[in-house]
Amino acid sequence: MATLGLIEYQDASPEVKAVYDDIMTTRNTDWINNFWKALASDPVTLRRTWESVKQIMAPGALDAVTKEMVYLAISASNQCGYCIASHTAAARKAGMTDAQFAELMAVIGMANETNRLASGYQVEIDERFRT
Amino acid sequence: MATLGLIEYQDASPEVKAVYDDIMTTRNTDWINNFWKALASDPVTLRRTWESVKQIMAPGALDAVTKEMVYLAISASNQCGYCIASHTAAARKAGMTDAQFAELMAVIGMANETNRLASGYQVEIDERFRT
Amino acid sequence: MATLGLIEYQDASPEVKAVYDDIMTTRNTDWINNFWKALASDPVTLRRTWESVKQIMAPGALDAVTKEMVYLAISASNQCGYCIASHTAAARKAGMTDAQFAELMAVIGMANETNRLASGYQVEIDERFRT
Amino acid sequence: MATLGLIEYQDASPEVKAVYDDIMTTRNTDWINNFWKALASDPVTLRRTWESVKQIMAPGALDAVTKEMVYLAISASNQCGYCIASHTAAARKAGMTDAQFAELMAVIGMANETNRLASGYQVEIDERFRT
Amino acid sequence: MATLGLIEYQDASPEVKAVYDDIMTTRNTDWINNFWKALASDPVTLRRTWESVKQIMAPGALDAVTKEMVYLAISASNQCGYCIASHTAAARKAGMTDAQFAELMAVIGMANETNRLASGYQVEIDERFRT
Amino acid sequence: MATLGLIEYQDASPEVKAVYDDIMTTRNTDWINNFWKALASDPVTLRRTWESVKQIMAPGALDAVTKEMVYLAISASNQCGYCIASHTAAARKAGMTDAQFAELMAVIGMANETNRLASGYQVEIDERFRT
Repeated sequence: MATLGLIEYQDASPEVKAVYDDIMTTRNTDWINNFWKALASDPVTLRRTWESVKQIMAPGALDAVTKEMVYLAISASNQCGYCIASHTAAARKAGMTDAQFAELMAVIGMANETNRLASGYQVEIDERFRT
Repeated sequence: MATLGLIEYQDASPEVKAVYDDIMTTRNTDWINNFWKALASDPVTLRRTWESVKQIMAPGALDAVTKEMVYLAISASNQCGYCIASHTAAARKAGMTDAQFAELMAVIGMANETNRLASGYQVEIDERFRT
Repeated sequence: MATLGLIEYQDASPEVKAVYDDIMTTRNTDWINNFWKALASDPVTLRRTWESVKQIMAPGALDAVTKEMVYLAISASNQCGYCIASHTAAARKAGMTDAQFAELMAVIGMANETNRLASGYQVEIDERFRT
Repeated sequence: MATLGLIEYQDASPEVKAVYDDIMTTRNTDWINNFWKALASDPVTLRRTWESVKQIMAPGALDAVTKEMVYLAISASNQCGYCIASHTAAARKAGMTDAQFAELMAVIGMANETNRLASGYQVEIDERFRT
Repeated sequence: MATLGLIEYQDASPEVKAVYDDIMTTRNTDWINNFWKALASDPVTLRRTWESVKQIMAPGALDAVTKEMVYLAISASNQCGYCIASHTAAARKAGMTDAQFAELMAVIGMANETNRLASGYQVEIDERFRT
Repeated sequence: MATLGLIEYQDASPEVKAVYDDIMTTRNTDWINNFWKALASDPVTLRRTWESVKQIMAPGALDAVTKEMVYLAISASNQCGYCIASHTAAARKAGMTDAQFAELMAVIGMANETNRLASGYQVEIDERFRT
């Protein structure tokens, strides 16, 4: 029911196949999840989005599991069902334990709570935080 | 301009002072930021919020800097100006480098982008993610 | 499973039927979608909401398809499943092509990304933008 | 700095003045806040928005102060600075006490927290809640 | 399909059972909804969240039904499906009538609309609201 | 006060200058706004973000002013002050009239309202919208 449908590997154009191949190689997996199959109707967006994800999610100053947990945190905060499911899987594959998941959720919940207390009470930013 | 005003240490009741003291001791600092001074008009909320933050943000399965970066990620995603300022400072104090900050922002941005592509394209959750 | 149930045409009061008739006439269609049937338990809200939608979505300085695409953009950004489904249909009926849909999604995604980069980096508004 | 400027009473067209007069009469006040002056550049939106607000915020099954507190709750949750300031004032004028404000904020914070725990943990809706 | 599974009463540890018992006693009910069963994999978060909810939702300056309606308002605004379902049930149990529900929804909708008009028009906060 | 500071043209590295030059050429302007100066501390993010924006915002199936208005719509909905200011300017430069701005805001407001009515009333997606 994806708006423009899902494009399977065997039905994909060479340019789409090239992206699919790179996704599977980079992630060391043998399948493509629906998100990419849905974007494949627009090969320009498919390529740009994948190249950006690949660049951003590669280990750097932050390691892979930290990045995946941040991705999951944003997805849970935004109520994106697909993203929560896919990035829970990705974070676990990258090494997230159940204990880390539980602590991550606690931080997400707390941040969403105090974000509203800070705005609701109209708290001014401290001078020390401005410099 | 905080809605119920800011309560300074010298004007605080003993129960509020006790929370302020615990904040300063736990954080190894000598000042209280406006968020807590704004909550202090409601000592019950002040205490409960502080006890929750203290419990959640203590190092556990996730270390302190990771937790602070997740907190900052949620705050940036939610457009909470106060929270971005205060948790940028807290994350730096916990050890976040400029390079980590920059990578964190890149992940936050990307997650917010793909969250909307997933919803906008009405992508169904893959069977493999449901188990 | 709508909270107050769905009111079908044949079961509707005259005031609700009048709104249903106007919806079908204005939209040149022969059915009522669930959104209106759910609101119909509160005829005052049903009428006000329909009159507002009718007024706002009529072609003016912006044409109908542009307005429907903006509506879809907001719905995708807000993660409203019902609204994404209904306004994708509405935008297509108003003339949105698959290519326009794909570009629209790309803009939505990008805007959600840079919105968080701007807030996360605490970027100040340029003087030139303030005038 | 409002995008289309602020229209003061003495500079307003008769149709805008009519709305301003109705706002002041309905609210039993002698001034117009910036929100309405900003909308006044689009008299159609000014009138429709005011008529909707007037209808919705009138006491009914819910009293005026409850409605204003809900309005404030949404505004705080959405991080709308203008709306938090104006609806804090409105709720107080309608009778909200400081104690009620503090409890309201606690509920807003908690709801924002558990909303993310529910989504983040991918909790399924109980059968009993579906009927 | 909850991420860490659902823990039923008979399978729960004594500390989890103690929280479950307190939930059922406090709410005068004989069952536990999935939210708590999902959190039960992390007994620390289960207890802290329940203690906070119990404290915050107890009648005080605001009565129970008002608090539940605010909770529902935030949940609807945030697009949290689970929370909307569970807090609609809770608000009804606390006494919310269908007429109150309908007015509540109207206020939520209006607040979400004017929140965006205020930000989109870049309306400055009135001096009178700052004091 | 941007978190990592603002990098002015004369202080920029060659790779940053190359992006700045491309921004000014593409937009036919002689200055760089703060958003890019703030990102410039992370040249990889600066380049990737600019290349994405340049690709996405180029006229295609949607013209430039429509894309800028959608960008502004998302920014207003998300309460991003910087983004509202900068994309209001960009949309005007691309040709948005005051009348178009006003209609755009009306659609944004309405969409945000009905998004919450749809979720709050727990409206199920119509079969016709699923195909």
